[in-house]
Amino acid sequence: MQIGLIGLGKMGLNLARNLTDHNHEVVGFDLSTNAVNEIKKYGCTGVYNLVDLVKSLDQPRILWIMVPHPVVDSVINELIPSLNSGDIIIEAGNSHYKDSIRRYNYLKKVGVSFMDVGTSGGTEGARKGACYMVGGDPETWKIVEPIFQDTAVEKGYLYAGKAGSGHFLKMIHNGIEYGMMAAIGEGFEILEKSEFNFDYESVARVWNNGSVIRSWLMDLTENAFSKDSNLQGVKGIMHSSGEGKWTVDTALDLQAATPVIAMSLLMRYRSLEDDTFTGKVVAALRNEFGGHAFEKNEKVTSV
Amino acid sequence: MQIGLIGLGKMGLNLARNLTDHNHEVVGFDLSTNAVNEIKKYGCTGVYNLVDLVKSLDQPRILWIMVPHPVVDSVINELIPSLNSGDIIIEAGNSHYKDSIRRYNYLKKVGVSFMDVGTSGGTEGARKGACYMVGGDPETWKIVEPIFQDTAVEKGYLYAGKAGSGHFLKMIHNGIEYGMMAAIGEGFEILEKSEFNFDYESVARVWNNGSVIRSWLMDLTENAFSKDSNLQGVKGIMHSSGEGKWTVDTALDLQAATPVIAMSLLMRYRSLEDDTFTGKVVAALRNEFGGHAFEKNEKVTSV
Repeated sequence: MQIGLIGLGKMGLNLARNLTDHNHEVVGFDLSTNAVNEIKKYGCTGVYNLVDLVKSLDQPRILWIMVPHPVVDSVINELIPSLNSGDIIIEAGNSHYKDSIRRYNYLKKVGVSFMDVGTSGGTEGARKGACYMVGGDPETWKIVEPIFQDTAVEKGYLYAGKAGSGHFLKMIHNGIEYGMMAAIGEGFEILEKSEFNFDYESVARVWNNGSVIRSWLMDLTENAFSKDSNLQGVKGIMHSSGEGKWTVDTALDLQAATPVIAMSLLMRYRSLEDDTFTGKVVAALRNEFGGHAFEKNEKVTSV
Repeated sequence: MQIGLIGLGKMGLNLARNLTDHNHEVVGFDLSTNAVNEIKKYGCTGVYNLVDLVKSLDQPRILWIMVPHPVVDSVINELIPSLNSGDIIIEAGNSHYKDSIRRYNYLKKVGVSFMDVGTSGGTEGARKGACYMVGGDPETWKIVEPIFQDTAVEKGYLYAGKAGSGHFLKMIHNGIEYGMMAAIGEGFEILEKSEFNFDYESVARVWNNGSVIRSWLMDLTENAFSKDSNLQGVKGIMHSSGEGKWTVDTALDLQAATPVIAMSLLMRYRSLEDDTFTGKVVAALRNEFGGHAFEKNEKVTSV
C-alpha cells in the first residue's frame, strides 16, 4: 500500500525500511532534510514539506504519524486543510489515550479516520518486526490491517477496539514494564550488597535460560552487564518518558490498587534527587524528639 | 553418572526421566511406594528406604535431594551414618541459603561435599531442561557439572560460587518473580477497570510478541486467559512459598532499598484477608474526627 510517513526519527526511518521490505510504497517527510535524504537511500520517496506529502498520495490517503507526542496536534492541524473525507491518519507514537480519543472525535467531524497505535519493541522492532496495539473504527482497521500484519512480528499486532484502546494498552504495557524493570533492578541491588561475589552477566544469562523470569528485559540486562560488568559507568538515575505516570494517574482515576507499579514510578522520581526534603524533615525530627544527630549539609554550614 | 535421587515428587520424577534420557543411572527413593514404582517404569532403579539407596551406589556417591525444604535436615541426618568421606550431596530444593551454608559446614566435618542448587523452570523444566544456580566447592563442581549440563536448557546452569550462593540466587530470582508477577497483575487490574472491553488473552498474546515485556510469565498469562477468559473461576488470593519473604528479610538485613519487591510481597499478604484491621482502624478514625460513616460488620451487629 501507499503510505505517507511523517516523522523520520529513529523509529520512523526503521519503519520506512521495514515497510519497503514488504513492498509498501513510502513517501516520507521530516523537518530534518538529512532524514529525508536518508529515506531516499532506502528506495522511498522523500519530500520536504507536508503539503507536498499530501499531494504525492493517492486518495484515500493513509498518513502514518511517528513524531514525539507533544507535536502530534500541530502536525494534525497542519494536515487538515489538505485532507479529504475518507483519508486515514495512523498515529503510532506514545500519545495519551485521552488525546487520541479527542483527536479521533475531532477528525471524525471532517471525515478523516483516526487510528491510535501503541508501538513496542524499540528501533529494532520498527526495523525487523514491531508489536502494535491498535484502536479505532473496525471499518478502517480492515483497510489498514495489512500494513500492521506485514511490519509486526508474528502474532505481534492486535486490533484492541474503539478509539483510544491502542494507546491505552501501550500505556499499561509501559506501566508493567516499569514494575518489571524495578523488580529486576532491586534483585541485582540485593546481589550487589550480599556476601557473595556474583558475575552479574552470568547471573542474567542463567536467569534468561530456563528460569521463570526469562524475558526480553533479562536479555537486555545480560547485554548491559556484558558491556560493563558492574555498570560502573552508569549513574543510577532513572528518567521516565511519561507513560508510567499516565498509568498511575489512570489507576488513581479508576481507583485501581496498583502499589507495585506506583512504587516503581516513585522510586524513579527518588533516583532523580541527590538529597530529599523528606530526608531532611525526618532527620530533623529524629533530632527533635530523641537528640539523634543529623548529618550536616556541608555546603550550607561552611558558608 | 550414577545418581541417588531422594524425593520423587513432581520435580523428582521429571528429573529422573530427564537424567535417564541423558544416560545417567538413577536410583530413586521416596516415602511413597507409588512414586518408587513409577520411577521403575522409566528404567530407573527404585528402592524403598534410604539405607538401600546408599548401599546401591558406588563410592564416591552422588546423592541428589529433591524434597520440601522443611525435611532436608532430617534426610541429611538419616543419611550421615551411611555416608563415607568423598560422597557428595546435591540439595536442589528451595532451601534458605543460610541453611545451605550451615549444612555445607556441618557435612564438611564428616568429609561430605554439599552443593546447594536453586532450580527454576517448574516441572516442565525438570523434565525437558531446567535452570540451575549452584553453590559449593569448585572441586566438587568439576565432578558434578556434567549432570547439570545434561539436564539444563542450553546456557541454563551457573556455578555461582561458594556455599549458599546457589540458593541465594534462587531466592533473589523468586523475589524478582514476585515483582514481575505483581506488575503484570496490576496492569490487567487497570484494564479490567477501564472503559474498554479488552480480550485479555489477545492482549497477553500481543504483549508476548515483539513488545518490551515479552517473557515466559506473559506466555503463562496468555495460557491462563485462554482457559478462563476473565479468570472468573480463580479467586485473587496470592499464596506464597516463602522465598519472597526471604528476599525481603535479606534486603532488610543488608539495608537494600527494595520497595517494589517488598510491596509485591505485602500485597500477597493483603490478598489473604477478606477484611483488615488496618481498614477497621482507619474507618473508625475517619468516623471519630469527621463523622464519616463506616460500613458496619453485619456479622457482629446482627447478633
